[in-house]
Amino acid sequence: MDNFTYFAPTKFVFGRDTQKRAGELAREFGGTRVLVVYGGGSARRSGVLDCVETSLREAGITIFEMGGIKPNPTDDRVREGIDIVRRENIDMLIAVGGGSVIDTAKGIACGALYDGDFWDFYCGKRPVERALPVGVVLTIPAAGSEGSGNSVITLREGAIKLSLRTEVALRPKFSIMNPELTESLPLYQTACGIVDMMAHIFERYFTNTPDCEVTDRVAEGVLKSIIIEAPKVMARPDDYQARANIMWAATLAHNGICGTGRREDWSSHFIEHEISAVYPEVAHGAGLAAVIPAWMEHVAAVNPDKVAQFAERVMGVATHEQDEDEDELSLLDAGIAIHRTLSTAEIAANGIDRLRQFFRSLGMPYDFGSLGIKEPDIPALVAALHLHKGNPIGAYVPLTPADTEAIYRRLL
Amino acid sequence: MDNFTYFAPTKFVFGRDTQKRAGELAREFGGTRVLVVYGGGSARRSGVLDCVETSLREAGITIFEMGGIKPNPTDDRVREGIDIVRRENIDMLIAVGGGSVIDTAKGIACGALYDGDFWDFYCGKRPVERALPVGVVLTIPAAGSEGSGNSVITLREGAIKLSLRTEVALRPKFSIMNPELTESLPLYQTACGIVDMMAHIFERYFTNTPDCEVTDRVAEGVLKSIIIEAPKVMARPDDYQARANIMWAATLAHNGICGTGRREDWSSHFIEHEISAVYPEVAHGAGLAAVIPAWMEHVAAVNPDKVAQFAERVMGVATHEQDEDEDELSLLDAGIAIHRTLSTAEIAANGIDRLRQFFRSLGMPYDFGSLGIKEPDIPALVAALHLHKGNPIGAYVPLTPADTEAIYRRLL
Repeated sequence: MDNFTYFAPTKFVFGRDTQKRAGELAREFGGTRVLVVYGGGSARRSGVLDCVETSLREAGITIFEMGGIKPNPTDDRVREGIDIVRRENIDMLIAVGGGSVIDTAKGIACGALYDGDFWDFYCGKRPVERALPVGVVLTIPAAGSEGSGNSVITLREGAIKLSLRTEVALRPKFSIMNPELTESLPLYQTACGIVDMMAHIFERYFTNTPDCEVTDRVAEGVLKSIIIEAPKVMARPDDYQARANIMWAATLAHNGICGTGRREDWSSHFIEHEISAVYPEVAHGAGLAAVIPAWMEHVAAVNPDKVAQFAERVMGVATHEQDEDEDELSLLDAGIAIHRTLSTAEIAANGIDRLRQFFRSLGMPYDFGSLGIKEPDIPALVAALHLHKGNPIGAYVPLTPADTEAIYRRLL
Repeated sequence: MDNFTYFAPTKFVFGRDTQKRAGELAREFGGTRVLVVYGGGSARRSGVLDCVETSLREAGITIFEMGGIKPNPTDDRVREGIDIVRRENIDMLIAVGGGSVIDTAKGIACGALYDGDFWDFYCGKRPVERALPVGVVLTIPAAGSEGSGNSVITLREGAIKLSLRTEVALRPKFSIMNPELTESLPLYQTACGIVDMMAHIFERYFTNTPDCEVTDRVAEGVLKSIIIEAPKVMARPDDYQARANIMWAATLAHNGICGTGRREDWSSHFIEHEISAVYPEVAHGAGLAAVIPAWMEHVAAVNPDKVAQFAERVMGVATHEQDEDEDELSLLDAGIAIHRTLSTAEIAANGIDRLRQFFRSLGMPYDFGSLGIKEPDIPALVAALHLHKGNPIGAYVPLTPADTEAIYRRLL
């Protein structure tokens, strides 16, 4: 267990009807002139946007709007938001949506108080020192941005998708989380979110830092919950309780509690980011569903221990196998055990098989073809990946270009 | 899963040598004139107090001291602290110690800004609206007060021990947690702390609120970690990694993350508080070690389901039993299963047995005699309990005076 700092001062207000408290919460954290950021027309059609804006107005708050944020959000919308904030003297951002909307609001929040180009933060030139307060009304459980200090933005020119991580500057001041708002999500998007939240735990769970018993067990518990609740949501999208568990799991997956005291990995995310940067029609979660099992097989060949632990504790893989070849009765007579102990590599492989089956059961893609990418330019993906993220990437097994190329090739 | 608010804005700085950052953290949260509250001479002898005060002085902070806080801390010391704060214009409390020291500092922090008697907060007359900032340098992992908004103080006159719970007003601004500082704790005190942190999870885990999968799994994960790490600490008190896991587990046990979205219980704590209020030589954790299995047996007779879940998932109790009476070979021949499914009540009972054995393995008391109480006045304990806490107490199984008397009688 390494030294760590854990500081997650977001106020979560969770449950039915909580979007009606937007005005009260915005006032609590000092908002008087608020830019409401949102995505497509569904926020308007579902009524959540009206409900939030009514609550804000009733609290005496002046509202400005910026809609139409798309998945894999881009720098041009952040720049547009920064202009609005400066022009209208905005003092708080409220994101009504999922990760793309929240991440755009975060980009605006830090960019508006900075004299230079906001991209300096994302490409690592400057650390974020201050930002406008951000509030969230979450409608998609996936990215975990409602509880994290992170933001991912794509630079349109060059298709460079980079993530920014702050300890606390970009953590939302408050996040309103009503599971009812997620009941109308399309199944595909629901499934993408489930993969994304699991990935956020995997990136922290797969570590070589020893003696992280508590954090491991918490991470395993959240993963197990997701695996139990996901089929319920897919079978009955209006199952409030299953939606509630999935929604809270997504937050815990990414607010840092599953990562305390250890070195993290993040190579699956980096490998996927190159795919959805070049092929923006690929949803991040769908890309991860293909990448993660491939990544896991590649690293398990070198370092199977933690993969086997995951297989056993989360996927329920048995450590012993009944040996069909033996005559059980004569062995019992002789007092000899009739079970064969599986090797760590076998347990790991069985766990990866089960994970792949689980992703398939959610209707997720599993290779370039099912992602809709006909002729992937793997050398270009590998070159861009290491140009953006260095060489090697990752920590559980550090990956060179030869490794990441092999992982991409598993998706052919 | 019920609606909930979760807001835990404490900055945790965890690991070796972190006490040297006290000055930096105190400045970050606005401290300039600080009252350092501590317990017995061990904080002085171990050097931690000097180290903290040196760090504060180097940060330009003026220091005042109040030492000698004892276990089961009392109102007189809180009043003394309030006087010092007002006289010396103190703007931050720093507690160097465990739960008793932190809880005293919290009592001072809210009492000093209130015109009436601070006890109004503890007896429920008034909610805490504001408090001076509190920082912590933790030396005993047990009470979880370093991450909670709670405080427990005993009114000396009448031996009334009451707990105050705030959502955020009394949460420490920062908590410095160096596991090395806990390596010199006596084994008995270490064990008491382990029982206390487990109890903080039990009070949240045992609920009738359905569909709390995520919170259940997180709670089970932290409990399981404690059960794995505790024997390591008891066998080798200077095992840094085991100490680190126990220390972080104690915080997660009580910072609210194991209690989101459900009705909590707290009857074991209330039952124990009456014991240690009347017999202040009883350590809170030792009292809990006796009370919890008795409470669990009493409630499992009425409502065994969650106890059985705990037994299976945390204590590793099997749900099937090999039936010794049968002739295995002939059954195998006939293709009949040779295992008997245990009833929920049997699984629960086996789990309680294992928990009792676990507490005994830590050297903990198990009844009034082993707690050093020769002739307990049970009617007086029951009367005081319900006078202070109402009738019934608890939620998993609401307990009347007849129930609580039966639980106390199990300890004879």
